[in-house]
Amino acid sequence: MSAVKKPVVCFLGPVASYTHQVHAFDTTQSGRATYGVVPFENSTNGSVVFTLDHFADRQGLYPDLSVCAEIYLDVHHCLLGRSPPDDDDDDAGAAGPEGDPRSRPLVPLTRIERIYSHPQAFGQCNRFLSAYLKGIETVDVSSTSRAAELVRDDASGTSAAISSAAAARLLERDGVEVLAYNIEDREDNTTRFFVLRAGTDDSTTPGPDGDSAAKGPSSSSSPGKQTPAKTKSLLSFTVPHAAPGALADVLSCFRAAGLNLTSIASRPSLLAPFQYVFFVEFEGHRSVDPEGKVARVLEQVGRVAESARWLGSWVNQRC
Amino acid sequence: MSAVKKPVVCFLGPVASYTHQVHAFDTTQSGRATYGVVPFENSTNGSVVFTLDHFADRQGLYPDLSVCAEIYLDVHHCLLGRSPPDDDDDDAGAAGPEGDPRSRPLVPLTRIERIYSHPQAFGQCNRFLSAYLKGIETVDVSSTSRAAELVRDDASGTSAAISSAAAARLLERDGVEVLAYNIEDREDNTTRFFVLRAGTDDSTTPGPDGDSAAKGPSSSSSPGKQTPAKTKSLLSFTVPHAAPGALADVLSCFRAAGLNLTSIASRPSLLAPFQYVFFVEFEGHRSVDPEGKVARVLEQVGRVAESARWLGSWVNQRC
Repeated sequence: MSAVKKPVVCFLGPVASYTHQVHAFDTTQSGRATYGVVPFENSTNGSVVFTLDHFADRQGLYPDLSVCAEIYLDVHHCLLGRSPPDDDDDDAGAAGPEGDPRSRPLVPLTRIERIYSHPQAFGQCNRFLSAYLKGIETVDVSSTSRAAELVRDDASGTSAAISSAAAARLLERDGVEVLAYNIEDREDNTTRFFVLRAGTDDSTTPGPDGDSAAKGPSSSSSPGKQTPAKTKSLLSFTVPHAAPGALADVLSCFRAAGLNLTSIASRPSLLAPFQYVFFVEFEGHRSVDPEGKVARVLEQVGRVAESARWLGSWVNQRC
Repeated sequence: MSAVKKPVVCFLGPVASYTHQVHAFDTTQSGRATYGVVPFENSTNGSVVFTLDHFADRQGLYPDLSVCAEIYLDVHHCLLGRSPPDDDDDDAGAAGPEGDPRSRPLVPLTRIERIYSHPQAFGQCNRFLSAYLKGIETVDVSSTSRAAELVRDDASGTSAAISSAAAARLLERDGVEVLAYNIEDREDNTTRFFVLRAGTDDSTTPGPDGDSAAKGPSSSSSPGKQTPAKTKSLLSFTVPHAAPGALADVLSCFRAAGLNLTSIASRPSLLAPFQYVFFVEFEGHRSVDPEGKVARVLEQVGRVAESARWLGSWVNQRC
């Protein structure tokens, strides 16, 4: 165990903006924050492409960052609004539910003319919006808390926001109230975050609890070293344009090594149209690798791929 | 060659909305259109997730649809606006370019307070927006032509749209003009579309030119049957939750069959959090398959995957 300074964690709300993510990557890379937390995927909405684009690191801005832990957070959204100058009394259910939303509005929504939120939040609330706010203009803003502020600033009461109950409590005195709770499509709506840290030597960099390797900031519940925890690693790679078979070759390396693939994603390489940066997650840890499987797969992928980059290893929080 | 009715093609603009895509899938499935055209991926912005979600077909609405061709379209975007009541004369370059955009505004943009467009179009014009319209509110609307109409309807001249030169020409009389041409990040900005047809028997359904198999509506430039054209196929699959190794197993089938994978994507299955529907494209055609490779891979994937669905075979338009 090594002595460590109290860590600085750069954490973003459940639905963060592109700008916030640049901040998390930058402050962690530069050492101003010990950890940065970025959303990686949502169970309803899929990959967070802004985060994948940062990991693709096409400009080489983040050579010294890696993922050291994952965090799962349940995500619940509320519809926020504010009372208009003169309250009318329509029936809350007037619009009639379609597509079986999980939640009903607490008050009539007939006066709502536009809805502010973050694009990811809109993507998680399709059913409620189809049932009660069909055809209403949606406005993308940088964060769900910004959306709540825009509602506060519109005294007409015709604006609504998909935001959090916490944002409503913060702005309660300014007339912002919850119009509907739990408007997300699915009860099991969950966002998985990655914890970033500077450095790529996962065997020595300690977590906030002072423990090292296979232990990230959120892994205090994981088994000790006597019973190795299940672990995962993230790898990005590109394949030679002239050898399309290389994609299957790279993916076959994992099967040959006996390492399970748990997710796969891709983003445009932006080197030429329809060439990609691929991202694979697989079971195994680079530094806790008694059978040398991860070392072997990294070596083999390095031979078949055009470029490859290990992006981190951490304890699986869902096993 | 078989006699065919003149086909009805349901075609959407380069950047189509979710609603338009529902329309393309529905009219083609029902036979009201002979072909439906949907965007699949953009070279700058990646997968079109709405289209993937339709192919995932989680509600089983489109059992009888398949892809019979692909189309590549170059995409150029313009910034549209309209003159305000009293024109002031700022310097067009006042905002100063950052991040090396390809294009400069023709007129000052200082009066612009909000920009309307389709989310995919915003994603293709990041550099121009960062350089000349940083921090300006962006409003997602259902299509780029809708964005142009909203600009027409705002007489204040403070709204702009990312849309097409064609939309500007259509609305020229209403005061809409081009403020900047070719504002897309990359000169090679290209969207790949899939052509859908009803039916899943790719050996008999003729294309609009009356030819069958390995010939889609846009494949008139492909080689004749004496020299088989390069072909591609699309397959979706899910893997058993309890057997994470199955993903590597499925992907290994393609390498074993000697079929190159050309793209891979995934979307949430929405059956349980962090389970996926995977999409792979690979070289080969189900009906023009002299060595039986595609037949073999479909049979093998069917054995390893939890579920699998062939979604079409067509002539590769870029080889």
